[in-house]
Amino acid sequence: MEKPIKKSSWKHKLHEIIYEADTQEGKLFDVILLIAIIASIVLVMLESVVSIDIKYHDLLNLGEWIITVLFSIEYILRIISIKKPFKYIFSFFGIIDLLSTIPKYLSFILVGSHSLVALRALRLLRVFRILKLARYIGASNKLMLALKASRAKIAVFLFFVVIVCVILGTVMYMVEGAENGFTNIPKSIYWAIVTLTTVGFGDIAPQTPLGQLIASVIMILGYSIIAIPTGIVSSEMTKRDHEEGTNTQSCPNCLKEKHKDKATFCYNCGSILNP
Amino acid sequence: MEKPIKKSSWKHKLHEIIYEADTQEGKLFDVILLIAIIASIVLVMLESVVSIDIKYHDLLNLGEWIITVLFSIEYILRIISIKKPFKYIFSFFGIIDLLSTIPKYLSFILVGSHSLVALRALRLLRVFRILKLARYIGASNKLMLALKASRAKIAVFLFFVVIVCVILGTVMYMVEGAENGFTNIPKSIYWAIVTLTTVGFGDIAPQTPLGQLIASVIMILGYSIIAIPTGIVSSEMTKRDHEEGTNTQSCPNCLKEKHKDKATFCYNCGSILNP
Amino acid sequence: MEKPIKKSSWKHKLHEIIYEADTQEGKLFDVILLIAIIASIVLVMLESVVSIDIKYHDLLNLGEWIITVLFSIEYILRIISIKKPFKYIFSFFGIIDLLSTIPKYLSFILVGSHSLVALRALRLLRVFRILKLARYIGASNKLMLALKASRAKIAVFLFFVVIVCVILGTVMYMVEGAENGFTNIPKSIYWAIVTLTTVGFGDIAPQTPLGQLIASVIMILGYSIIAIPTGIVSSEMTKRDHEEGTNTQSCPNCLKEKHKDKATFCYNCGSILNP
Amino acid sequence: MEKPIKKSSWKHKLHEIIYEADTQEGKLFDVILLIAIIASIVLVMLESVVSIDIKYHDLLNLGEWIITVLFSIEYILRIISIKKPFKYIFSFFGIIDLLSTIPKYLSFILVGSHSLVALRALRLLRVFRILKLARYIGASNKLMLALKASRAKIAVFLFFVVIVCVILGTVMYMVEGAENGFTNIPKSIYWAIVTLTTVGFGDIAPQTPLGQLIASVIMILGYSIIAIPTGIVSSEMTKRDHEEGTNTQSCPNCLKEKHKDKATFCYNCGSILNP
Repeated sequence: MEKPIKKSSWKHKLHEIIYEADTQEGKLFDVILLIAIIASIVLVMLESVVSIDIKYHDLLNLGEWIITVLFSIEYILRIISIKKPFKYIFSFFGIIDLLSTIPKYLSFILVGSHSLVALRALRLLRVFRILKLARYIGASNKLMLALKASRAKIAVFLFFVVIVCVILGTVMYMVEGAENGFTNIPKSIYWAIVTLTTVGFGDIAPQTPLGQLIASVIMILGYSIIAIPTGIVSSEMTKRDHEEGTNTQSCPNCLKEKHKDKATFCYNCGSILNP
Repeated sequence: MEKPIKKSSWKHKLHEIIYEADTQEGKLFDVILLIAIIASIVLVMLESVVSIDIKYHDLLNLGEWIITVLFSIEYILRIISIKKPFKYIFSFFGIIDLLSTIPKYLSFILVGSHSLVALRALRLLRVFRILKLARYIGASNKLMLALKASRAKIAVFLFFVVIVCVILGTVMYMVEGAENGFTNIPKSIYWAIVTLTTVGFGDIAPQTPLGQLIASVIMILGYSIIAIPTGIVSSEMTKRDHEEGTNTQSCPNCLKEKHKDKATFCYNCGSILNP
Repeated sequence: MEKPIKKSSWKHKLHEIIYEADTQEGKLFDVILLIAIIASIVLVMLESVVSIDIKYHDLLNLGEWIITVLFSIEYILRIISIKKPFKYIFSFFGIIDLLSTIPKYLSFILVGSHSLVALRALRLLRVFRILKLARYIGASNKLMLALKASRAKIAVFLFFVVIVCVILGTVMYMVEGAENGFTNIPKSIYWAIVTLTTVGFGDIAPQTPLGQLIASVIMILGYSIIAIPTGIVSSEMTKRDHEEGTNTQSCPNCLKEKHKDKATFCYNCGSILNP
Repeated sequence: MEKPIKKSSWKHKLHEIIYEADTQEGKLFDVILLIAIIASIVLVMLESVVSIDIKYHDLLNLGEWIITVLFSIEYILRIISIKKPFKYIFSFFGIIDLLSTIPKYLSFILVGSHSLVALRALRLLRVFRILKLARYIGASNKLMLALKASRAKIAVFLFFVVIVCVILGTVMYMVEGAENGFTNIPKSIYWAIVTLTTVGFGDIAPQTPLGQLIASVIMILGYSIIAIPTGIVSSEMTKRDHEEGTNTQSCPNCLKEKHKDKATFCYNCGSILNP
């Protein structure tokens, strides 16, 4: 099989570095990008703390400029190195990349606008580029498969949880009433979720004996049914582990299956297995 | 086998649509009913929020009328289409259907009566009609079977949890006393449940060192024994998955099922199984 | 085999009813006793609620007298019907039975003494007599076996949890200090337990950024390591379920093991298994 | 085989007692050390409670001196009995041992310095010497192996939890804002962790309907994904239990191990296994 001749080698090279992660340089680029993204998120965080923002305003501003320039360069390189730039520009990550780069430029036009924080926070979504790195961790793949397989069961479970919370929240609204903090049904449902999931903020708490009795039932229910998603995922993973160690090959002599992956002879009749 | 001749075809058709879900129209009816039920519940919720009720009172009132008319039509159709109307009228869902339809009509007689909310909230119970839809999701069936099988064990566990809460609640009442919020034994038991289930509202919290020590024990106990229902359901589900390891092939001689995938002879009569 | 001649048949009969639960009367006695114990506990509970005690004081007093008389009769019958009365009197349950009977009599001597509540609360321990009934529920036996088998592992886990709480509690005391509610090390350890077990009362909460960072670590740790007791119990139960379906019998012909309990023929070679 | 002649028998003996735990005396030394460490920790705890410190100051001071002298002797003996004293002195535990011994001596120079508490708290790290004892508990070994094997998967899970908390914390900061307690992004992330892990202190709680809706999603998410670490550990442990299903018999021909209990032929070389 013949390999096509590579033309415009620097563009191709750039594409390989930026969009792929197979080469040494590609991995390096991903790591640097990851650090830049995390740094940009830390900057947004620190700026939100009033006391730090007052003290180190200039430093944070400088850091923000460096990030903005780096992101701008990355954005331009991404457009240059790809064959169909518009496909990238209007892709999900293309829009995220643009929006998370421009806030600093926009701050010239819209002076001191607070709403730019929301725009900058979009950088968080760039973190999902890191998941490209996560792919290397084989473990996460297996995890995802187990979760995908139990998706339907978990959906049924969540559906049940939501219905229970709606019913019990409404009951609590009628039992406790607005004078005990259960001001309306949506808020009561919120409280039921807080209680059933065993979070228990305590900003709203039942005051009447009957309310406390119902609350006790909700709590014990929540404490017990957490066993359901746990059981689903556990059994799914156990199943996977179980199937994994053995293969589906059957012995050519006695037709036995479930041989160990390493086996070269049938554990039952001693015949040589197909390699 | 002869099929009985269908008379009064429109009544029969109606019955099929309303009470069954096998035909295209039957499924459509179920989905529309589901939407109407959810809409009616959302209406009750929104009306309970004072600020929304003031602003959109007329709109909510209109919606309530539409729902009431729809439910009325459905109720009449259900009575017409069934052979034994009284069996439906006095069934659980028949009563629920009636009660969740009449509040708006009653509001003419009992002007502004708040207690009608309770009646309207009964619509929530109509949600369980949705479960008829849930039947289509195969996953929930398997889930229910696993839960049913572990019912006895979970009952023993809940019995144990309640006894522990009663004992520890009483102990805490004697240790902490009314001055620290443990005003009486039922309230202390309520607190013990809040703590053991790791909800922890914080509306009542132990103040004395001894009380905090006992609370620590309750918390660690609750944190550990959550493993029990989880273990029960996990093992039950793993078992079920495992049994799938046996195949559905039946012995050609004695018709026994649940042979191991690897089995070449029937475990019951010793005949050779089909490969 | 000769049966010994029963003398003093009513004493023997009484013993059978009170101490055993094999006969119809024995079971009936246990159920009545159970109801009496629950009633006595409910009475203690209700009396602790000030508003109820004021309203229904006479009724509660009457109930208390009935319970006291019933318990007195039971206590006397227990002494009469047993061969070695002192063995019963000085046994654990003998002492509990006496102590939970006398408070009402003592109230003549020690007028209005509050401390008698503690004595009456001992009746709670009588609930454990109910466990004699629980024995009939086969499920609880299996549960107990699984828990017993994983006892050592759970002890190691609890030991680890306590050490972590002691260390992190001390760290939080030094980080947050008395001004943020972490008044002393035992209290800080109490807080660490509240946090690690995901109870989270909120009566004490970290205020400094560093404290909140450490708290975050504790919470995520607690959220993750709950997997350990759960995993222990789940695997133990799965193991038990797994071993259960099959027996340890080996085929007389091919020596295969793990035959189904119902199997009469070897699933591998078709030989007849030993019955 | 010849044993080398032991010289300087008392030094050797001392080394055996202090550094090893195979002999009777070695175990005794470990137990005494364990008691001394626990006593020293309890002393630090009690001293931190102001009311106890005032009352029993002299007693606590005396106890502190006893511990200090004991630790000093132990430290000197450790240096004497080892061949390369500097290797011990500059080892992790060597430094911990020194630092946890000197605070009382330092208190002469730095009168009443509060910061010595931090130094004394280092004694907590000496507890890890106890783990040397834990080694005897076979159960913990198996536990550690299961956890080590699922390390990668749990890391992926924690990484996911942290990212979700960062994103949702930022969202909540923008939704709720500083006026509802979400003063800055790090604090909002802290709140998201408190909520996702189902701890729920309640020191910060969402006030706006939208905030409560997002909080509900976080809570249900946290309630569901706890199934993931649980599933990981459960399946890992079940797998380990299952592998015990293989026996330790090694093939007489090729010495391979981990044969199935049912195997009659080696899965590697096809030789007949011993029955």
